Amino acid sequence: MDRQYPSAALERAVGEFSRLPGIGRKTALRLVLHMLSRPEEEVSTFGRVFSTLKQDIRYCKVCHNISDTDICSVCANPKRDGSVVCVVENVQDVLAIENTMQFNGLYHVLGGVISPVDGIGPSDLQIASLVERVSAGGIDEVILALSPTMEGDTTNFFISRKLSGFGVKLSVIARGVTVGNNLEYADEVSLGRSILDRTPFV
Amino acid sequence: MDRQYPSAALERAVGEFSRLPGIGRKTALRLVLHMLSRPEEEVSTFGRVFSTLKQDIRYCKVCHNISDTDICSVCANPKRDGSVVCVVENVQDVLAIENTMQFNGLYHVLGGVISPVDGIGPSDLQIASLVERVSAGGIDEVILALSPTMEGDTTNFFISRKLSGFGVKLSVIARGVTVGNNLEYADEVSLGRSILDRTPFV
Repeated sequence: MDRQYPSAALERAVGEFSRLPGIGRKTALRLVLHMLSRPEEEVSTFGRVFSTLKQDIRYCKVCHNISDTDICSVCANPKRDGSVVCVVENVQDVLAIENTMQFNGLYHVLGGVISPVDGIGPSDLQIASLVERVSAGGIDEVILALSPTMEGDTTNFFISRKLSGFGVKLSVIARGVTVGNNLEYADEVSLGRSILDRTPFV
Repeated sequence: MDRQYPSAALERAVGEFSRLPGIGRKTALRLVLHMLSRPEEEVSTFGRVFSTLKQDIRYCKVCHNISDTDICSVCANPKRDGSVVCVVENVQDVLAIENTMQFNGLYHVLGGVISPVDGIGPSDLQIASLVERVSAGGIDEVILALSPTMEGDTTNFFISRKLSGFGVKLSVIARGVTVGNNLEYADEVSLGRSILDRTPFV
């Protein structure tokens, strides 16, 4: 067991860092000591940014993506196709899909997936607001772009039931072999899926 | 190239994190989004700890280790042997040596090693205060426990010249094969050193 740090202020700072995911006490100590080698202004700016972070960050009232304005830049963009809504888990997924440049519709950020193990139920996610959005009309297709996991599939199923009866087209992103990899290295499930979900060769 | 984040507050927080060593923009984004999922009080505490970090952290006036008091708990401990001083680079090294339970003397934290490439000269380190400490008397032995690198060796040499003439015994921590590893995996330099610096078999 490690001895205690020689200072309560150091202990406190290391404790705060090591509470973050993926950061152990050794890394935390290295980070804190790095900060101590930096100018005071830089370190206090770091602190100030995080002490008001939760107040500073706002969410789009339509899609629940992080935004500086009430309506985010995607939802407010008249060039985007408002009739297609892509349902994703989180902000990273929006960034990832935007980077593909293959989607010109709008998003709906759930804030996670249904996961009984983690105590996350449908009411913890932005599902009710998705149903509301669809029932308001103007949406022709909802694309489910959740992680291809048990939790993602459960959430897809739950959403599909909630949206049945609104006459909206439901689709799920394609699952198959990854582009650029040798077929022999593909996992069985994805390869099997790629055969079942084969598309016409153009 | 990644698209910009949808919010300036998010951008700012990610920027602050990714300025830390070993944390890229993807990790920074993951950390910030994790914080957003935590209670507001927890996040603002995190911020407050760092906004005053540089003011809160103090250094021992004797050994320059991080301390909450003017004199650190090691220097103030009457059970420690004040006649032996171990010179180390930084706070982590003090913790590492304390964890071995093999040293009962005092420390002197240099704050780094001489490294012309990084623009670190002798005057940037606590070398003058070490010379002062030795010249004040009462110290019989100075143990040089710097990293076994070119920079560490340069610093060892510089300190040895500064301390010559004070009649203090100078020693350097042993370099040799690491304990618990097969000899065939030892690097040539350490193995060669272990032969040159062999000690009597007791």
